[in-house]
Amino acid sequence: MYNVKVYVTYKESILDPQGEAVRGAVHRMGFDEIDDIRIGKYFEIKVSKQEERSVEDVIETVCDKLLANVVMETYRYEIEEVKETV
Amino acid sequence: MYNVKVYVTYKESILDPQGEAVRGAVHRMGFDEIDDIRIGKYFEIKVSKQEERSVEDVIETVCDKLLANVVMETYRYEIEEVKETV
Repeated sequence: MYNVKVYVTYKESILDPQGEAVRGAVHRMGFDEIDDIRIGKYFEIKVSKQEERSVEDVIETVCDKLLANVVMETYRYEIEEVKETV
Repeated sequence: MYNVKVYVTYKESILDPQGEAVRGAVHRMGFDEIDDIRIGKYFEIKVSKQEERSVEDVIETVCDKLLANVVMETYRYEIEEVKETV
């Protein structure tokens, strides 16, 4: 079994209107020391071990096709193998 | 300057309808080895150093009041200090 964490964020060149809006809000709360906020999506995915394909292949295909809009977004992931208790 | 990463996710007890929907979609794509998907929000926040209050205080107040719905969601954060080039 694998626990995979996926982080999907806008590419640097892309304006993040939501991030801008939240930054305005925190400034109105008095937190001027917050210089920038970028917002993304975060996925925690449990994948059971398969012989036919690697967990990397599974995650990259699912990210490319479903979780990320690869035109505007970029993604990275972390894979942690979880020992199954018998 | 600090780079702070904030992860906001539903509490374990809360049903994640979006996660369920995405899981259904990846199963229809043929990835049956994906057992569970939970979706959350991810924030990358740049905070400049302040004498009056710690970056932890700033982040926890902003999370409690704005970024997370603490009734249904939980959050964690990672703080990385970035050496400012003079």
